[in-house]
Amino acid sequence: MPKTAIYPGSFDPVTYGHIDLIGRAAKIFDKVIVAVAHNYHKKPLFTTPERLKMLKDATRGMKGVTVESFDGLVIEYARTKKVNVLIRGLRMISDFEYEFQMALTNRRLANDIETVFLMPSENYAFLSSTLIKEAAALGADISQFVPKFVEKPLKERLRR
Amino acid sequence: MPKTAIYPGSFDPVTYGHIDLIGRAAKIFDKVIVAVAHNYHKKPLFTTPERLKMLKDATRGMKGVTVESFDGLVIEYARTKKVNVLIRGLRMISDFEYEFQMALTNRRLANDIETVFLMPSENYAFLSSTLIKEAAALGADISQFVPKFVEKPLKERLRR
Amino acid sequence: MPKTAIYPGSFDPVTYGHIDLIGRAAKIFDKVIVAVAHNYHKKPLFTTPERLKMLKDATRGMKGVTVESFDGLVIEYARTKKVNVLIRGLRMISDFEYEFQMALTNRRLANDIETVFLMPSENYAFLSSTLIKEAAALGADISQFVPKFVEKPLKERLRR
Amino acid sequence: MPKTAIYPGSFDPVTYGHIDLIGRAAKIFDKVIVAVAHNYHKKPLFTTPERLKMLKDATRGMKGVTVESFDGLVIEYARTKKVNVLIRGLRMISDFEYEFQMALTNRRLANDIETVFLMPSENYAFLSSTLIKEAAALGADISQFVPKFVEKPLKERLRR
Amino acid sequence: MPKTAIYPGSFDPVTYGHIDLIGRAAKIFDKVIVAVAHNYHKKPLFTTPERLKMLKDATRGMKGVTVESFDGLVIEYARTKKVNVLIRGLRMISDFEYEFQMALTNRRLANDIETVFLMPSENYAFLSSTLIKEAAALGADISQFVPKFVEKPLKERLRR
Amino acid sequence: MPKTAIYPGSFDPVTYGHIDLIGRAAKIFDKVIVAVAHNYHKKPLFTTPERLKMLKDATRGMKGVTVESFDGLVIEYARTKKVNVLIRGLRMISDFEYEFQMALTNRRLANDIETVFLMPSENYAFLSSTLIKEAAALGADISQFVPKFVEKPLKERLRR
Repeated sequence: MPKTAIYPGSFDPVTYGHIDLIGRAAKIFDKVIVAVAHNYHKKPLFTTPERLKMLKDATRGMKGVTVESFDGLVIEYARTKKVNVLIRGLRMISDFEYEFQMALTNRRLANDIETVFLMPSENYAFLSSTLIKEAAALGADISQFVPKFVEKPLKERLRR
Repeated sequence: MPKTAIYPGSFDPVTYGHIDLIGRAAKIFDKVIVAVAHNYHKKPLFTTPERLKMLKDATRGMKGVTVESFDGLVIEYARTKKVNVLIRGLRMISDFEYEFQMALTNRRLANDIETVFLMPSENYAFLSSTLIKEAAALGADISQFVPKFVEKPLKERLRR
Repeated sequence: MPKTAIYPGSFDPVTYGHIDLIGRAAKIFDKVIVAVAHNYHKKPLFTTPERLKMLKDATRGMKGVTVESFDGLVIEYARTKKVNVLIRGLRMISDFEYEFQMALTNRRLANDIETVFLMPSENYAFLSSTLIKEAAALGADISQFVPKFVEKPLKERLRR
Repeated sequence: MPKTAIYPGSFDPVTYGHIDLIGRAAKIFDKVIVAVAHNYHKKPLFTTPERLKMLKDATRGMKGVTVESFDGLVIEYARTKKVNVLIRGLRMISDFEYEFQMALTNRRLANDIETVFLMPSENYAFLSSTLIKEAAALGADISQFVPKFVEKPLKERLRR
Repeated sequence: MPKTAIYPGSFDPVTYGHIDLIGRAAKIFDKVIVAVAHNYHKKPLFTTPERLKMLKDATRGMKGVTVESFDGLVIEYARTKKVNVLIRGLRMISDFEYEFQMALTNRRLANDIETVFLMPSENYAFLSSTLIKEAAALGADISQFVPKFVEKPLKERLRR
Repeated sequence: MPKTAIYPGSFDPVTYGHIDLIGRAAKIFDKVIVAVAHNYHKKPLFTTPERLKMLKDATRGMKGVTVESFDGLVIEYARTKKVNVLIRGLRMISDFEYEFQMALTNRRLANDIETVFLMPSENYAFLSSTLIKEAAALGADISQFVPKFVEKPLKERLRR
């Protein structure tokens, strides 16, 4: 049976850090479902269809990778998909704490689902999407942090 | 003279993590005053009377434990009560920093008042009230994180 | 050629922690430009001219120290001033992470500009401007954290 | 093709924390090879055959789990076994740093091999084998930290 | 009934950081027993009687403070003394982890005994006895870190 | 007057992480003295003359960089050289703590000397000399971590 894992997130927007991680996950699991949280609690910069579109562009050609959106609890979504592995990236200390809290809360809510952590490339280990947005809003060249098709709409969106 | 300690917080709402800590404090000190901050800077989900009521329900039968609310600086409140010990729970790293900053700021403002830190049960060490609220808002069963009489109003409040 | 460094920040308002750090920087570099970020992303308590005025009062008599404001990316500002050193203070863990992320993002955007970190006096190592503001809003005596000419307007501003 | 992962370590001796992690790994991967490092740089308490024996006893009946020892670099061992996934447990901050350093060093040495991190049960999140050994040496009852067949030889070994 | 707490440690040798903490503990508890671990696992610089003598000199005149040594598990010692509170100082991150691990291990071994953490003065928050010893061995003036009656024997001991 | 800084360390042996940092320091200061601690408390792998020779080879052609060894306290050495700036690299959390403790201890011993922290390239941010040595001892190709003229003697030394 093919081994499937879900990589949930807000992806608002997708960065090279996310893309690096999806690539690593695809080497480990047969199928990777990148799952965009529709009901993300912070007001997103991009709509769910926009984020789905960007992710599909970013993962085009990656074997075994699909992109979907979901509503509600990620553990309920995982159960619906009959998947028992969640993937998360670990970057720095504060990440680690938040990710641990979330993973342990999820484990309490669904003991049959396991969270595995992957390490992004050290080139993206310190990337913060908040800092990318701040830099972009001030006119910085962010082409080394996000793909071309993300940079343009991101700058337009931040200009408004 | 009975030894008294104040456990200040927003308790918005009380969780099993808080209740665990109050129980530990009550084993160490003769009297424990659980003190609800009325002027909590973040907009609370529950009113001060609602939070007081929940805490009273949660600590019913605990020997030496009383529940009050206070206005203004916690160190001024402690002085009014002639108490020189504040209690705080320590969970993870970010807690540790914030708690240290607050305790050192309080010590600078009132050198006669000492903050002591207690460790919650490891079952609650990773509990985050923010994550509990997010999970509850998405319809999760949070009965293992908060008492029944908190779960119901919490879900109602978040639904609004 | 005199060695110059830029110490950028929001300084909203300046605290004894900042002043301590400026003094240390002035012992190391010939010239120190304290640079107030005009387009600081969080809504500031004080206007840019108010923050400039307070910083000028706070650094009066410090040899080699000037105060300016800047707009846009700090690395663009540094290039305009032909300065290749940024100064930042390091206090605790969360600082460290955020500062590292920002410094590495800046390095990616401008490889010729280096960030150096200085350590404030341990008397200010745990100072949090958020906690100072909270304490001030509740009427605390904050004269040991900020100069007289900051304390008065800060309390007035927070009262509004 | 069955998906295989290697869980390397010194396992000197195996604890309930390790066993918990092996169980979680076995739910995610088809085959899990628990790999005892023979050339562990710290002088081990138990010989490699002793550690292998304990691990075999501890994992008896776990589907897909085998126990082996290896010599030299773990990445060379993984290549010999044609496995591209290493498993490590993440507990606390210091772990996180050391594990990250090791995983990034391994990635530099073998870019085709990925390290995935699993989270032990919070009941074992704070377990330190050093503290277990210290407690055992002082005569503590460590039956909640290690299996019976480990506790007895561990106490005997430490008594010598 | 007077409230008693035990402050266990190796105290090899006592520093102003320890003395500061003992003073704070004595303000909170009626009786504080400073307990020197005889079977400290690292080879101590000073013998148990030497460490006891220095601590007695350092705490002379502190109301309610006594100094003792103990053998074996600290929780067994606490039970013998009918004390259910252990005191530990918290300084920085690594401390925090180690202290938490130890406190949770102790809690598992003796659920009736609680560890409370106190915060040393920020003037001692970064003091490391290892660094003090290294500095002393190289001839530094360490009179601001340890009392006179510790500095002299410490330098003599390190010279050997 | 040319601005001089001292970069002290054990450099046992020098790695690309150190070399990266020396290059950054040389862009900020007119003169950088790389200072090899002769009385390093851990038993070094290489003798002081060996470490000096490797550092000289590694920094050949770097403008303003000299290499020396020193005995005793680094602050005494700095005073002898009439230098008031020490340079240290900051990598991860544990570094941060140790570096802070050392810098604050040094500041207490010599208030006129300031420590500045530089950030290595993210490519070296996770490099641990302990892990490099372990990998080298097991026969790994460490040519991306240390220069050729270090790799060869390092492997020979570890083989013994």
